[in-house]
Amino acid sequence: MKPRLLTPGPTPAPEETLLELARPVTFHRSSQFRAVIKEVSEDLQYVFCTKQPVLTITASGTGAMEAAIANTVPPGGKAICLVSGRWGERWRNICKAFGVTVVEVKVPYGESVAPAALAAALKEHPDAAIVTSTLSETATGCRNDIKGFAEITRASEALLIVDGISGLGVMECRMDDWGIDVVVTGSQKALMLPPGLAFIGLSQRAWKRVDSLYQGPSAPKAFYFDIRKYRDNLAGNDTPFTPANTLVRALRLSLKRLRDEGIENCWKRYSRMARAARAAAAPLRLELYAKDPADGLTVYKVPEAVDGVAILGALEKDHGIRVAGGQDVLKGKIIRLAHMGYIDYFEVLAAVSALELTLPKFGHPVEPGAAVAACQRAYAGGA
Amino acid sequence: MKPRLLTPGPTPAPEETLLELARPVTFHRSSQFRAVIKEVSEDLQYVFCTKQPVLTITASGTGAMEAAIANTVPPGGKAICLVSGRWGERWRNICKAFGVTVVEVKVPYGESVAPAALAAALKEHPDAAIVTSTLSETATGCRNDIKGFAEITRASEALLIVDGISGLGVMECRMDDWGIDVVVTGSQKALMLPPGLAFIGLSQRAWKRVDSLYQGPSAPKAFYFDIRKYRDNLAGNDTPFTPANTLVRALRLSLKRLRDEGIENCWKRYSRMARAARAAAAPLRLELYAKDPADGLTVYKVPEAVDGVAILGALEKDHGIRVAGGQDVLKGKIIRLAHMGYIDYFEVLAAVSALELTLPKFGHPVEPGAAVAACQRAYAGGA
Repeated sequence: MKPRLLTPGPTPAPEETLLELARPVTFHRSSQFRAVIKEVSEDLQYVFCTKQPVLTITASGTGAMEAAIANTVPPGGKAICLVSGRWGERWRNICKAFGVTVVEVKVPYGESVAPAALAAALKEHPDAAIVTSTLSETATGCRNDIKGFAEITRASEALLIVDGISGLGVMECRMDDWGIDVVVTGSQKALMLPPGLAFIGLSQRAWKRVDSLYQGPSAPKAFYFDIRKYRDNLAGNDTPFTPANTLVRALRLSLKRLRDEGIENCWKRYSRMARAARAAAAPLRLELYAKDPADGLTVYKVPEAVDGVAILGALEKDHGIRVAGGQDVLKGKIIRLAHMGYIDYFEVLAAVSALELTLPKFGHPVEPGAAVAACQRAYAGGA
Repeated sequence: MKPRLLTPGPTPAPEETLLELARPVTFHRSSQFRAVIKEVSEDLQYVFCTKQPVLTITASGTGAMEAAIANTVPPGGKAICLVSGRWGERWRNICKAFGVTVVEVKVPYGESVAPAALAAALKEHPDAAIVTSTLSETATGCRNDIKGFAEITRASEALLIVDGISGLGVMECRMDDWGIDVVVTGSQKALMLPPGLAFIGLSQRAWKRVDSLYQGPSAPKAFYFDIRKYRDNLAGNDTPFTPANTLVRALRLSLKRLRDEGIENCWKRYSRMARAARAAAAPLRLELYAKDPADGLTVYKVPEAVDGVAILGALEKDHGIRVAGGQDVLKGKIIRLAHMGYIDYFEVLAAVSALELTLPKFGHPVEPGAAVAACQRAYAGGA
């Protein structure tokens, strides 16, 4: 059976990216590797829509999230955490681990945080040092209005920190133009690489905060995630610690692919695929979980009477289709179908087809052909 | 020209390990990947010579070093740092970044720290919470007497923390038998993988310290490097954060190779290769930099009159041989030839041959054949 990976991370990597990983290991302190760092760094700036340096950290995405917190807010400082799911909670948990006072602005799973809620929280807590947010809440499939958040934070002292791990490169997110202060992402989603690298970009305003924090009495206790080291080394196209250099070499190829297509074309393509995936919901007789869905994944509610965990198993066993279920309290209650990175429309169509074939076996009859046709009609509707 | 990588990290990876990295990306929350984690975890215990869990962190080796410090000693606590080079200094710098009081026991570059010096420091500072040490000081090529250190720390309250990044798997290091408390290593040396993963093992005594620290008033401010998360997830063959899972899959193959050979046979093989590399020094008219040399690399002093940076360039340009120079103050002053991981004797012989061919071009005449013959005689001398 032909396996197809449609989980919202890791996502498949292009063949030439994978083959690069099979090439011999090379030394990282060399002019050749410095040239790779330079090229990758410029292409990352393009993806982040920023003129500021984008730093590459060998870590899971959570590593870059920790770097964002540890370097911008001292213990005892205040964070407004916008929480619409598990990944918004991840920000909150990191803040708590670092002794940051958390003001939580929380919405029920499936909903997005309204900019007005942020405005109200900031009015009540004008001393907030940071605001954490999530571009695409991968746990629920919601998108958040980062542009709207930035309009509010720009006029305040608070830095806007964005988890772009499953959103950046998929949906419009203009770091400089919108005035976002910190954006983090990981290698295993839109950047079409296996997991292992995390990335962080900071605005000039954020860098001022970082540099003054380190000079003050509450200097961050950080070493591996002291992002000044990465910035200072990057100025010479170098890294502070032995990087996952074969992954960086491979990243170069994935970024070229992304750049050749053009970031705005990527956004359009993902949006079109997302519309197709959402159009399948009604004929599949499944509700969409997210009220304002993100473009990198589509989340279907599993009907009460259906075993959501067993469906995942059947999709993989019978059809080679690997999608994700819910995490924590959402386990068995949702199906998460990714359409980001190196996943194309025809794979989404395959997944919808497999759902159409599988759901009836779990006591949830659907009309054969209805969902794939709806998917196709939505896709044919154009970019 | 055929390139040969003989730097003390990264080191070459076996072909089957690299090819595994070219296989499609897979999902990490699956029974298949849990089986890989289980197998890798057991094989890591074998390499660490421990019955305790060995944790895999997606990070450079320095990430695991930070985890060792952040989880075992609170800010304001005291560390005795045994420093014989740049990597011993790395421990000291991490301690300082975390507000740990540092007692430095320092020897000149090229020398190893004597256990008696540790005993004296511990007598003077019986309140030391940890002792940091380096099995193989990659910056100078020295080995340190970890067994001797452990005999001293075992009888104290201080935990012995060992940087095994370029030493573990190369030289005898028996975590449980010797009574070492914390051992860290990285993927890109004896474990024959590209960089990107770091590993840490802790004794029961160290785990007690960790758990009590988190319960106390000086609970570590850690999230990504909160090693309890890794331990607790590993109990279910899982990971707390999206791991570099294709690297873990590849690690499985490298560890099998290591296990098939047997760790003690590995130690013997590296020792034999190291003797051969050291035997080349005299006929090359080069001094050995390390008084008590490690087995994973051999460090030759560059004579005053010779341009040590230019030699490195010529070795690579003319012969495809990539060795490393010195770092920081040692730049241009030493040549570091690695013989660890997937580097075999014949590559060491090639490097010695290339040195014999190259040194005369830099005003340092040597007798053709003398060094390769000496190398060969030492190697033929047996295991």
